Amino acid sequence: MTYHQLYQNILRKRSFLCVGLDTDIRKIPSHLLKEEDPVFAFNKAIIDATADLCIAYKPNLAFYESMGVAGWISFEKTVKYIKTNYPDQFVIADAKRGDIGNTSAMYARTFFEELDIDAVTVAPYMGEDSVTPFLTYPGKWVILLALTSNKGSADFQLTTDANGEQLFEKVLRVSQVWARDSQMMYVVGATQGSAFENVRRLAPRHFLLVPGVGAQGGSLQEVCRYGMTSECGLIVNSSRAIIYADSGEQFAEAARRAAHEVQQEMNLLLK
Amino acid sequence: MTYHQLYQNILRKRSFLCVGLDTDIRKIPSHLLKEEDPVFAFNKAIIDATADLCIAYKPNLAFYESMGVAGWISFEKTVKYIKTNYPDQFVIADAKRGDIGNTSAMYARTFFEELDIDAVTVAPYMGEDSVTPFLTYPGKWVILLALTSNKGSADFQLTTDANGEQLFEKVLRVSQVWARDSQMMYVVGATQGSAFENVRRLAPRHFLLVPGVGAQGGSLQEVCRYGMTSECGLIVNSSRAIIYADSGEQFAEAARRAAHEVQQEMNLLLK
Repeated sequence: MTYHQLYQNILRKRSFLCVGLDTDIRKIPSHLLKEEDPVFAFNKAIIDATADLCIAYKPNLAFYESMGVAGWISFEKTVKYIKTNYPDQFVIADAKRGDIGNTSAMYARTFFEELDIDAVTVAPYMGEDSVTPFLTYPGKWVILLALTSNKGSADFQLTTDANGEQLFEKVLRVSQVWARDSQMMYVVGATQGSAFENVRRLAPRHFLLVPGVGAQGGSLQEVCRYGMTSECGLIVNSSRAIIYADSGEQFAEAARRAAHEVQQEMNLLLK
Repeated sequence: MTYHQLYQNILRKRSFLCVGLDTDIRKIPSHLLKEEDPVFAFNKAIIDATADLCIAYKPNLAFYESMGVAGWISFEKTVKYIKTNYPDQFVIADAKRGDIGNTSAMYARTFFEELDIDAVTVAPYMGEDSVTPFLTYPGKWVILLALTSNKGSADFQLTTDANGEQLFEKVLRVSQVWARDSQMMYVVGATQGSAFENVRRLAPRHFLLVPGVGAQGGSLQEVCRYGMTSECGLIVNSSRAIIYADSGEQFAEAARRAAHEVQQEMNLLLK
């Protein structure tokens, strides 16, 4: 998917919401446990209930891998279901990969060739040759971790170097030599508030994937105030606040209501 | 496995070799492709041929995940085969994970509870709460990326902060607050040569997992000269140079010869 197509989807749907499919078999409604593949059954219901309100889905690989082989089957079925039924959705594999070149190339093949996923989250610690193998697929994206939404983000990402540059700033700057804003996005946590001003100074047009709104406490208005561009430039993720809005038989309707509420807010912010 | 048990294994086998099971279905001998699970058949033969010469195996998850569900089945079968037949082997899932706390906890459950793996490689970029969920399992280890063996390692890991401390040095220092040397190791690439002196100043007793000997060009003697401690303190990985020593029907014997050569060199260096 191109930058322009993504922006057109945002305008058409009046939404820049990404629904995070962090599906934990211990948290889904109990009546689904009698299904052959409860995780996929849950995801399918959530997707059908929210697809017109969001522009992206982001399954976090950890939740699927924690169930071993069965989890990978659920993950692949989920991706195929979205791609088949909602081809305009931007599918992000939240994998936070990053390895030496030949190994990153293996991951790129998995996600982009085998599964036709649109974007993969990648960790920057190992540098250029851990990232560039993901950049050889036209229309596919790397979403590089820059400033994450968790408490530990301060441990290393905010380290200031001898030139007064923080590590996440260096990641933003250096990685722009590897790819343009048509192939690269950055993860910037909603819990970081006014840091968005700083991010926009360094990456004025890049799309930012923003986790941390909802369960983690970030404010959507704050994020838009400092982070939104003339082409939106934001994909805001919400996982738990949407998919676990209700734990009973009506979970999908509740998820829809929660997603609708966010979409309404986004509609106003897109003015 | 405890620090002491690991060291005892090294003394008994006169080896600190880890065989990296970076098994790529496009590179294994063609006669194996008629097997039901060619990757597992290859791994089983390599393991049986090398188990008395090494103290650890390290499957790199990327190679298995690139084959989707079939790859996860091969990975799980490989881990179970080692654990059942060679219980003294230290099994490392080279996963380079690192996510927000609840997600890291899911990964920890997968690797340590479901699969009984001994250690997982973790990326430090997201800080403390991405690492500590892996530290709640007695006898299980985190192997944190410090200074990797690839070219891109210079991009961020060598960044010097305002106090003159490089990022990998900060990772070594800060992470020692999270765990002791009985639960934490570090990845330090063999291609980094005399950087080991610096690492040992900061982590005098920790085990170091050292990739990059062999195909990537690192020297075992150099690594031992600067990195070995009175309790060895090194697990040196070799992947391609051993498992792909020969591409014909005699691949397992060739792998054994390659592993034996390294073990002989290690025997001398352990003096």
